[in-house]
Amino acid sequence: MTRERVSRRGRRRGSAAPAAALSAARGVNYRQLKNPFPPMKVFSDDRIAAIHEAALTVLEDLGIKVLLSEARDLFVAGGALLKDGDRVQIGRDMVEAALVSAPCSILAKAAVPERDVLLEPGSLIFQPGAGAPHATDRINGRRPGRGEDFKDLVRLTQHFDVLHMVPPLVEPQDVATNLRHYFTMQWQLTLSDKLPFIFSRGTPQVEESFEMLRDFRGLSDAQLTNNVYCYTIINTNSPRQLDIPMAQGLIDFAKAGQVCIVTPFTLMGAMAPITVAGALTLSHAEALAAITLTQLARPGAPVTYGTFTSNVDMRSGAPAFGTPEHFKASLAAGQLARLIGLPWRSAAGSAANLSDVQAANETQFGLWGCLLAGASVVIHAAGWLEGGLTVSYEKLITDVEVLQMVAELCAETAAGEAEIGLDALAEVKPGGHFFAAAQTMTRYRTEFYDPLIADWSNYGTWTASGALDATTRATGIWQHILAGDTAPAVDADRAAALHHYIRRGTEAGGRFPVS
Amino acid sequence: MTRERVSRRGRRRGSAAPAAALSAARGVNYRQLKNPFPPMKVFSDDRIAAIHEAALTVLEDLGIKVLLSEARDLFVAGGALLKDGDRVQIGRDMVEAALVSAPCSILAKAAVPERDVLLEPGSLIFQPGAGAPHATDRINGRRPGRGEDFKDLVRLTQHFDVLHMVPPLVEPQDVATNLRHYFTMQWQLTLSDKLPFIFSRGTPQVEESFEMLRDFRGLSDAQLTNNVYCYTIINTNSPRQLDIPMAQGLIDFAKAGQVCIVTPFTLMGAMAPITVAGALTLSHAEALAAITLTQLARPGAPVTYGTFTSNVDMRSGAPAFGTPEHFKASLAAGQLARLIGLPWRSAAGSAANLSDVQAANETQFGLWGCLLAGASVVIHAAGWLEGGLTVSYEKLITDVEVLQMVAELCAETAAGEAEIGLDALAEVKPGGHFFAAAQTMTRYRTEFYDPLIADWSNYGTWTASGALDATTRATGIWQHILAGDTAPAVDADRAAALHHYIRRGTEAGGRFPVS
Repeated sequence: MTRERVSRRGRRRGSAAPAAALSAARGVNYRQLKNPFPPMKVFSDDRIAAIHEAALTVLEDLGIKVLLSEARDLFVAGGALLKDGDRVQIGRDMVEAALVSAPCSILAKAAVPERDVLLEPGSLIFQPGAGAPHATDRINGRRPGRGEDFKDLVRLTQHFDVLHMVPPLVEPQDVATNLRHYFTMQWQLTLSDKLPFIFSRGTPQVEESFEMLRDFRGLSDAQLTNNVYCYTIINTNSPRQLDIPMAQGLIDFAKAGQVCIVTPFTLMGAMAPITVAGALTLSHAEALAAITLTQLARPGAPVTYGTFTSNVDMRSGAPAFGTPEHFKASLAAGQLARLIGLPWRSAAGSAANLSDVQAANETQFGLWGCLLAGASVVIHAAGWLEGGLTVSYEKLITDVEVLQMVAELCAETAAGEAEIGLDALAEVKPGGHFFAAAQTMTRYRTEFYDPLIADWSNYGTWTASGALDATTRATGIWQHILAGDTAPAVDADRAAALHHYIRRGTEAGGRFPVS
Repeated sequence: MTRERVSRRGRRRGSAAPAAALSAARGVNYRQLKNPFPPMKVFSDDRIAAIHEAALTVLEDLGIKVLLSEARDLFVAGGALLKDGDRVQIGRDMVEAALVSAPCSILAKAAVPERDVLLEPGSLIFQPGAGAPHATDRINGRRPGRGEDFKDLVRLTQHFDVLHMVPPLVEPQDVATNLRHYFTMQWQLTLSDKLPFIFSRGTPQVEESFEMLRDFRGLSDAQLTNNVYCYTIINTNSPRQLDIPMAQGLIDFAKAGQVCIVTPFTLMGAMAPITVAGALTLSHAEALAAITLTQLARPGAPVTYGTFTSNVDMRSGAPAFGTPEHFKASLAAGQLARLIGLPWRSAAGSAANLSDVQAANETQFGLWGCLLAGASVVIHAAGWLEGGLTVSYEKLITDVEVLQMVAELCAETAAGEAEIGLDALAEVKPGGHFFAAAQTMTRYRTEFYDPLIADWSNYGTWTASGALDATTRATGIWQHILAGDTAPAVDADRAAALHHYIRRGTEAGGRFPVS
């Protein structure tokens, strides 16, 4: 169902193998991918060790400002020094202990086992663009994110096997902030069977979200606490600051046994040093502080290391993504992640204002940085525009094509005697062709990747079909998907119970985010 | 001069560092690049050895049809068996001897030393799209390639340091075929100081091209024969066939000491087996045959291994590029190139019909295949559309951006104490910013890549500037470059002598291509 192909104008007519049959016959699994790319280094091992040491020095000598008293208390109880009322100086022994207790492999359970996600070094997990205040598409234009956009994008995420987790795609701004966690949980759980995301916007919303998840999945409290069923993203307030909802999220998720993906979002030259090495030192220090807090809250709590470091335009201060500096920062983060041995997330992305060639090139360039850095999770890998201010429906489709092509590279390629095929080579005379060779006939339905959006017809055929560019064609693809049935199997009683929970919570005034 | 930046609407105004000054100050060298990417394997070493062995078996047992008698004679004199009048069966001992005598490092001399190209394993050399019958741009539309297009594209190639060789960009179809070699040599030599290309269209044109090159560079015959000053591309007629002009080119270039880049162009499922392993076996066999011929013509002749293997759409037979299969074929070719120890060329490319998101994604995806395959030369890396039927001016610009970003990754990134910058980290308070940090102030003009085409302005600014997409902006870039002075220093006497040579040749009727 989720691999179903959309027919492209006229190209499928008269084809020997209908697209759906062809995809099913190929059977390349886009789930549970392992990264096949050789890890690339930007710095020597001794320089990476120096960055790690410098980060420990930052934590120990400069410290980090922690705005939540509960978090400061945990740090101090663990041995940190409290300075200036809210700054904690964290000894390297504390960090090292946290790195020992943090698990290096985390099984995150989705609604069905085939959607489970294994967060560990070597995994390759993709997410579409996350957390955008706006949505855009060619039909309806750019607008503040609405509930309907959130639902549409959950459905598109559900449709593609190569998107492995549900992120907070767009902010549903037409849903009141005290009710928004009901809305996002309801539609993540009922429109997708993939791993859901919970925003860390304070304990009241997080607790209710855990309750909705527990009941909808039919879990006991102990089952929820002892297994990972959801995740959150924790950004620091660089430089060297952890705010209240983020610190609370680290504690709440750790205690609940749910996974925090810790990601300082640092822009070189703005909220971080202008150098790759300096920005990574800061990012690494902040990530280590957050990881340490999770382990102080609950030793062994699941936590994922992360970095999202890019640069700004030094003329305007505007953020940039998919740049050489972003690429190098990903490589350095990968080296640091391997040093500490944790799974980790990175991010692709683009600063372009529409789904154009710049957007495609930046997102793919940033993606290759993540792939060669060995990132376990690549966020914003599809549809992310304007440095995260907008998710584009069309770009989501065209970026998914790239992700699917990467997923194809994760599958093993055979080169046995049958594939080398001396018989086939002998069968075809010099200057002949292999269209009718026996080897071709047995393999032609399944040998090649079947594209989602690429149009390989010649110029005349393409012109006669309306000369549509890829972005225009992508509109037809998402419309077709959304016009179809993307929903997973849902237990009607649990859906009704979830609805009831939300109605009761709404009548009681919902829960406001904490800031 | 060649790194000069084009100002983008309004974004440069009031900037502290004018673009040209900024580029010059950075001083990142985009010439003589070394590939920094870890080589990736698609097959195990024993499977690569099996493909190599199978290719030797193909040459020994099945043989290759050679349409040129001079070439057959050379093969037979070298020990090959002649069958069916024109098919040579080449013993593996002959191939192995050729691989010993072929040099593994080739210095190709341009007009000035800083443009020299070192063809050897580990080099990273880019070329724009080559050999297209059509040209296209947003102003003038798609048309058969004209002399003016050829000149424009030579000038654009000259402009960008990251384009290292001049390829046969578009076919100047408004120049008579008997005079076309005069035209292409004249404008390559006078509009560029980079390594020129000579088409292997028979001895008469090739000999005259060598003469024009020799005289324009001020060389003796011995100097020309003992050093590489130009190159050609040799495609086989897959499967297992070498036609007259290609075989003649291999002999003529080898004898003249000029470099042949041997590249079977094989499409899986069409002119090659449908499997990556089978297609590479065929491609490898054909390349080895061609390399062997060069060494029979002149032992030690400079020759470069190459592969351009992609797949077709099995529904329509249409060629596809930048696919997962293309990527895997590049990886396999890289493994085979490392096995035989020769420099080698690969290719990026796109089957899209215009410079859109599909085109960008396919070209960049194919490029990463080449980069991770360790290709020494990547052809069609900028501007190539419709599977090589068209070169796009705009796509040339947008693809060059990607090549420049790759070139940035070739430069070393420092991570010393100054870059880690504990001082800067201590200088900025929690929650502050680094815009005014001392480390930032000393580096902000030179730390980051300065984009050619990317627009990082926010949505409001971008909209107020006309909401132009990258392809539309690219028109302004190439127009600006072509409106300026791109010409290298040219000796007026030699230019006059070249002009005189061409006038005399033209009056004598030119030289017709051999087919």
